[in-house]
Amino acid sequence: MNLTEIQDCLHEKNFPRLKKELLQGQIADIAEFIDELDDKNTLLVFRLLPKEIAADVFSFLSLESQTKLSSLVNETELHDILNDLQFDDKIDFLEEIPANAVKRILQNSSETERALINQFLDYPTDSAGSLMTIEFVDLKKEMLVKDALEKIRKIALTRETIYTCYVTDARRRLEGIVSLRELVIASPDKQVGEIMNEKLIHVQTLDDKEYVAELIKKHDILAIPVTDNEQRLVGIITVDDIVDVIEAENTEDFYKMATIGEMDTSPLKADPLFLIKKRLPWLMVLIFVNVFSGAGIAFFEDTIQQVVSLVFFLPLLIDSAGNAGSQSATLMIRALAVGDVKIEDWFKLLKKEFAVAIPIGLVMGLGVSVVGVFRAGIDVAVVVATVMSLVVVVGSTIGMSLPFIFSKLNLDPATASGPLITSICDITGVLIYFSVATWYLGI
Amino acid sequence: MNLTEIQDCLHEKNFPRLKKELLQGQIADIAEFIDELDDKNTLLVFRLLPKEIAADVFSFLSLESQTKLSSLVNETELHDILNDLQFDDKIDFLEEIPANAVKRILQNSSETERALINQFLDYPTDSAGSLMTIEFVDLKKEMLVKDALEKIRKIALTRETIYTCYVTDARRRLEGIVSLRELVIASPDKQVGEIMNEKLIHVQTLDDKEYVAELIKKHDILAIPVTDNEQRLVGIITVDDIVDVIEAENTEDFYKMATIGEMDTSPLKADPLFLIKKRLPWLMVLIFVNVFSGAGIAFFEDTIQQVVSLVFFLPLLIDSAGNAGSQSATLMIRALAVGDVKIEDWFKLLKKEFAVAIPIGLVMGLGVSVVGVFRAGIDVAVVVATVMSLVVVVGSTIGMSLPFIFSKLNLDPATASGPLITSICDITGVLIYFSVATWYLGI
Repeated sequence: MNLTEIQDCLHEKNFPRLKKELLQGQIADIAEFIDELDDKNTLLVFRLLPKEIAADVFSFLSLESQTKLSSLVNETELHDILNDLQFDDKIDFLEEIPANAVKRILQNSSETERALINQFLDYPTDSAGSLMTIEFVDLKKEMLVKDALEKIRKIALTRETIYTCYVTDARRRLEGIVSLRELVIASPDKQVGEIMNEKLIHVQTLDDKEYVAELIKKHDILAIPVTDNEQRLVGIITVDDIVDVIEAENTEDFYKMATIGEMDTSPLKADPLFLIKKRLPWLMVLIFVNVFSGAGIAFFEDTIQQVVSLVFFLPLLIDSAGNAGSQSATLMIRALAVGDVKIEDWFKLLKKEFAVAIPIGLVMGLGVSVVGVFRAGIDVAVVVATVMSLVVVVGSTIGMSLPFIFSKLNLDPATASGPLITSICDITGVLIYFSVATWYLGI
Repeated sequence: MNLTEIQDCLHEKNFPRLKKELLQGQIADIAEFIDELDDKNTLLVFRLLPKEIAADVFSFLSLESQTKLSSLVNETELHDILNDLQFDDKIDFLEEIPANAVKRILQNSSETERALINQFLDYPTDSAGSLMTIEFVDLKKEMLVKDALEKIRKIALTRETIYTCYVTDARRRLEGIVSLRELVIASPDKQVGEIMNEKLIHVQTLDDKEYVAELIKKHDILAIPVTDNEQRLVGIITVDDIVDVIEAENTEDFYKMATIGEMDTSPLKADPLFLIKKRLPWLMVLIFVNVFSGAGIAFFEDTIQQVVSLVFFLPLLIDSAGNAGSQSATLMIRALAVGDVKIEDWFKLLKKEFAVAIPIGLVMGLGVSVVGVFRAGIDVAVVVATVMSLVVVVGSTIGMSLPFIFSKLNLDPATASGPLITSICDITGVLIYFSVATWYLGI
């Protein structure tokens, strides 16, 4: 698939060649190409796709293009696309378009399907239910392996995965799991019940999708079954969807740690007003926090008046505390997020933090004392070096503890953002700095 | 698998029951349990495991436990474990243990295997080669589907995945891919060549593993073939290993953005000296950067002497600039990392940044002016509000541009850490603040 050539064909309206070139690409590449087109060309190129791959390409399109396309195609076309979509992709799409558009689409569905779709649309966005698909292979314990294989053969085309099959009883309760690999290896006349694995890893519809991701990562599995609260199998979640969940969770943590609110569009596509709404709230909260640093400084106005050179070192000292604190916080937030560390480990980690922060503080104090002597004399240098060692240790302790405190309060540990820690370290830094200076310099 | 019960059994040395309890757990759970044990119990519990699952459990153990175990078991046991490990897990293990231990282990391997292992150990840590496994299914174009299925049946047990099969020519060059699903659906007397997919997605041994992760994510595939520079198929990489790569890359970015050096152990297990080495360098660099803020303040000593209340607002103003800058930087770093934004988009994003930062700056200026009037009178309030608007816009611009600049210099955009941006915003903030104050207050 040669992009410039395709662009040329589009420009020259050479559609037969455009189609030929396009079909040499992978589905994801075709979708990526369509994502970049304007309205007119989106519809034009999409209509060139053979019916067998149209729905597949549609499922790889960005949400923006999906919505655009669904408003551009006619009712029959939309119906055909939706019919060919895998169930979880269909739900993903329906979740994002306006409610009246969903209604219009559902009018063309059978009553059973409409009920099913509505049930899926009701699952909370962060739940396992919202991620699962109903297109799995279910087998019965009493089936012979050869019959199971024959069944799989027949329905393979319409299933999201055939590589893990699920064994259910008459009331649809999950009894076991058997992989296609095990079925292929087993002797054809064995019963499925003899080879299935009864040690089940499964989740429930309302479990958080982060928990689902954790299980799939931990056990290195390709799919996980989802059951309702009566242990009935209602769907499965496959690893490709989990990869997206992992990326989204990481993005959320990155944003939280930089005081940006939840958003799932790229900054390139996001509306400025939307970005302002995501960025402004925490910035305003932090102004409020920072006012206390100002109050601290005001309290020491006399000291500053007498030794103005103390102000030179203010940004240096409070920044260093904030930097050390951000390091500790990030180490803890990440370790909590990937499960390397649990909330009970706090005290053990606190002891280690001292073993790390004290030497770091001393080295930094030593480093800054050189600058201090050179700029403001021995006395100020002693104050600055002492304060540096102190604030680095205090900052590190604050930084490493905050994620645990947030976690304990059932908040996301990532709320302990760099900016928040910087602001808190500022206040403590100001107080420590000017107290030590006032005392040591005898002001 | 009941953890307290297992602990009790271990305590009471009731090994038969311990074994029974243990085997009710998933492989990953058994490994997790062993990971927490001390030396003596690690060996003891590991020896209880039936041979069929011992290697499997071993592959799920943490690196620390693997190394510990390999030094505790006798030569025959180690040989047995390694023999049963999947090839990529074996390489992962050998990559991490000391060179002389590798040598001793390799003495027991056949010459061909030794050569192969050495070749794999030579691949750079970040390359596709270091991730791949050689245990794939290869088929020939001329094979009938039924014969291919028969072959898969026979070798399924020893292959990492049988769900994607690879079609190679006589010289081992990759010609096509066929999924087990397609083989199962196809009529048994067709040739593999007729149903295989010739549109190949593949990587080369020296490609970066981040690139491999990107392709697997983009195309939603379960495995990707790896070829050498003569297009010969040398291995495959499966999605479960890629999930770990994605997590590791994210951790690396989190650490970089908090000025922590590369590390792949948890803070709980890391040695304090190791943590100091990872944290100290950037903290020292930032002291150096911060000295310039001090110099800036020194330059305006007269202004400060005359209006000391200006110092109250210093932390507030420079922090706000840094916070807004960190937000912009994080948005860009993440968008660049997940591929939402390309380096060419810089100018387009800069324009949008202005559309976002100017309103944010104005609102924050307005907010801080209230504090200013209350604390230091109208004149200082005007200065502080103006400066706030200015530094937020300047800080945002610096924050959004730095990741692009680093990227352009072939450095990781994540090097534009919050602390670095805070320090740079400090310097610019100090200069803008006191310049405006000196001018407006007529000092």
